[in-house]
Amino acid sequence: MGSGVQISSRAIKMECIHCNKSSKDDDFIFETRYWKVSLAEDHSYLGRCYINLKRHSGDLAELKQEEWDDFIKLVKKLESALKKAFNATMFNWTCLMNNAYQTNPPNPHVHWHFRPRYNHNVKFSGEIFEDIEFGYHYNRDRKKITSNEINRKIINKIKENL
Amino acid sequence: MGSGVQISSRAIKMECIHCNKSSKDDDFIFETRYWKVSLAEDHSYLGRCYINLKRHSGDLAELKQEEWDDFIKLVKKLESALKKAFNATMFNWTCLMNNAYQTNPPNPHVHWHFRPRYNHNVKFSGEIFEDIEFGYHYNRDRKKITSNEINRKIINKIKENL
Repeated sequence: MGSGVQISSRAIKMECIHCNKSSKDDDFIFETRYWKVSLAEDHSYLGRCYINLKRHSGDLAELKQEEWDDFIKLVKKLESALKKAFNATMFNWTCLMNNAYQTNPPNPHVHWHFRPRYNHNVKFSGEIFEDIEFGYHYNRDRKKITSNEINRKIINKIKENL
Repeated sequence: MGSGVQISSRAIKMECIHCNKSSKDDDFIFETRYWKVSLAEDHSYLGRCYINLKRHSGDLAELKQEEWDDFIKLVKKLESALKKAFNATMFNWTCLMNNAYQTNPPNPHVHWHFRPRYNHNVKFSGEIFEDIEFGYHYNRDRKKITSNEINRKIINKIKENL
């Protein structure tokens, strides 16, 4: 019985896109002891990131104190880096996990969405990044997809400013 | 000069809707040492709350360790209460502060939006509360406004389960 539970737990993690995030992935930016930061696939908000808990846990209320403490430092580090890199004006932080409840059983994994917001356009690597909803809720339908080369440059620019 | 700065700081707080939240307000639910919890004005997501920092500070990165520690306990307490009160399935937490940037100068004040999400309808006090977007991002355009009497009952139900 014990090994059945073990296999089941392993299967859950194998299926979890957040558990499968690797520091070798193209979108990887940096990691701390308990969190892994990667660049989002669209840049509607320049420097938009995901922050994944390294452990498979599905509820903020279940975070351990040391995971919170590490996250608190990460908030300061990431906001500071985006201010220095692109002069971001302010930041939207969300912890939602809705998609994980589209399957039965649900398989949530704590992660944060980080959207830097800008009261100005940013020209970077030949592209212009606009936050046309600044001062208002983010718009999930507006996508800005850039080349792998530009994505790499965004990641490097953030890393240089960490 | 010093008194000028003082007056300015006081003026900022006087104009801040978050600083002006009071435990005597009809929407007040409970408070901790550093945070105040109030019921949102619409119940598209039953038990939707605002969590306001009691101090006027405009950036998550500026929170003090004791304010974070207090918030961490609040997350557990509030999620637990909503599970017991209405059998909430999971929770969306967001820290945005966009509206504060519609004025110049902006006047942000750290607060969280808390949306309990439900994989089932909840019948409470003669009303049916539906989360028709369950498993998907919340919808800010869908509003459910209820009477003051029902709002009071929602608040009491949460308080009973804290």
